[in-house]
Amino acid sequence: MTQPTIVRTVAQMREHVRAWKAAGQRVALVPTMGALHEGHLTLIRLAQENADRVIASVFVNPKQFAPHEDFDAYPRGEAVDAEKLASVGCDLMFAPNASEMYAPGFSTLITVSGVSEPLEGAARPQFFGGVATVVAKLFIQSQADVAVFGEKDYQQLQVVKRMARDLDIPIEIIGAPTARAEDGLALSSRNAYLSAEERAAAVALPDAMKAAAQAVAAGSRVDEAEAIAVEALKAAGFRQVDYVEVREASDLSRLGPGPIGEAEGRILVAAWLGGTRLIDNMAVGQA
Amino acid sequence: MTQPTIVRTVAQMREHVRAWKAAGQRVALVPTMGALHEGHLTLIRLAQENADRVIASVFVNPKQFAPHEDFDAYPRGEAVDAEKLASVGCDLMFAPNASEMYAPGFSTLITVSGVSEPLEGAARPQFFGGVATVVAKLFIQSQADVAVFGEKDYQQLQVVKRMARDLDIPIEIIGAPTARAEDGLALSSRNAYLSAEERAAAVALPDAMKAAAQAVAAGSRVDEAEAIAVEALKAAGFRQVDYVEVREASDLSRLGPGPIGEAEGRILVAAWLGGTRLIDNMAVGQA
Repeated sequence: MTQPTIVRTVAQMREHVRAWKAAGQRVALVPTMGALHEGHLTLIRLAQENADRVIASVFVNPKQFAPHEDFDAYPRGEAVDAEKLASVGCDLMFAPNASEMYAPGFSTLITVSGVSEPLEGAARPQFFGGVATVVAKLFIQSQADVAVFGEKDYQQLQVVKRMARDLDIPIEIIGAPTARAEDGLALSSRNAYLSAEERAAAVALPDAMKAAAQAVAAGSRVDEAEAIAVEALKAAGFRQVDYVEVREASDLSRLGPGPIGEAEGRILVAAWLGGTRLIDNMAVGQA
Repeated sequence: MTQPTIVRTVAQMREHVRAWKAAGQRVALVPTMGALHEGHLTLIRLAQENADRVIASVFVNPKQFAPHEDFDAYPRGEAVDAEKLASVGCDLMFAPNASEMYAPGFSTLITVSGVSEPLEGAARPQFFGGVATVVAKLFIQSQADVAVFGEKDYQQLQVVKRMARDLDIPIEIIGAPTARAEDGLALSSRNAYLSAEERAAAVALPDAMKAAAQAVAAGSRVDEAEAIAVEALKAAGFRQVDYVEVREASDLSRLGPGPIGEAEGRILVAAWLGGTRLIDNMAVGQA
């Protein structure tokens, strides 16, 4: 089992990338905040299918947490992360400290209007600015040819695609299908917060989403399908539903309230089980 | 006299840059909004001293004009610009249209807090966001090794330096000393708006700035030196003085009101002669 090389500075990462590119190799980047699980490893494998070398960045980005959010509590475990990357043959782990990413006097923010604003952006107004800024930095730092993001964070994927296109960053962005447990629950670092009882109830989230998507595909009104999913979540014990919305798949503009017609849609859900907020999403369109 | 090659797409520009870099050549970029004058040509010459190949971009950026500003009236003359670039041996002119720079759905904005906020930023709140965004795009599009900006737009130079450093764009940024007419007036496209009488009075601007810089160097209080410059401008017929301020040279934080001490300063001025707003700046520090 090859250990990934761990580098902590942009200059070190660029040295590796320069050598790889000089050898004609294609380089992929998989940005993460650590706490790696099987979902992340599927991203690394997909990156390996699309490039000769794969860098995983591990950086818990302070700029995408609001003051009241769980930045300090966010799980960290670099040694375990490095082992997991080794198990799938990842070439390089880029694990900068905060001062390497944000030098004294740092004052630049990248914002993406439109696609950043609804859903997660409405609940967390600083979030996507922090994401777009750190991801642009990682793209420019690594000069990777391709980057892989999970569809689990679907809005993030669309924000990052829009940002890279708007800034002309020469990188291909691939969305990886969400890795799921056997019962259908999307894998997430935050699932660790669920009690056994909550974990059992959590399957209602993918189930409700699938039912709504099937109804829309069969020609139901979008607003009715959304309402049915909300009811199913509440019946399963979700204490609060932040949103169940069918939106256009790339710019996340609102679809409905009537039948979806020819549009390519995405159903996106955020809901609370006890103290844990779960999100998920799924493609939806006319059958 | 070699004509510069004119390209209108990012893809074409990158083809040239790729060939140059493959040949081991260093590439410089000089971003302009056209209406080229001798001041711009000194930037091209400085770029030639620092690189093997020079690209001049000519793009009147709609995003750095507010709705009431002079976007439509801003002088444009591509054929004359191309001739002037030819006269100094510039290799490539990148003259994209607005849809090449801002495709439908464009929604990304780069803002730089701190250094963007006072002076020109106070008068024109959208201005430096527009500048930082288009300049980041030009840097990323061209993948130039070095870029040259005039010190005439001193705050812009500091905003661009901060943005490039914060986003880790691998480009060296060189500030070129302001080109001046024989009497000391800084060259500017907007000087064309001055009447003969106003042009004669305009020399008071560099003179007042020099007098204030000399007073500060000799140990005068910063607030007194600024006030003397304001009075000199008014006496010379400037109808309004937007600011005369001594600030720290790189982050543009306020210096004074007492003597400047050890700080490296910059005096920056904006004032109106009739309907024309002139800006200028100069280094200032203890003698």
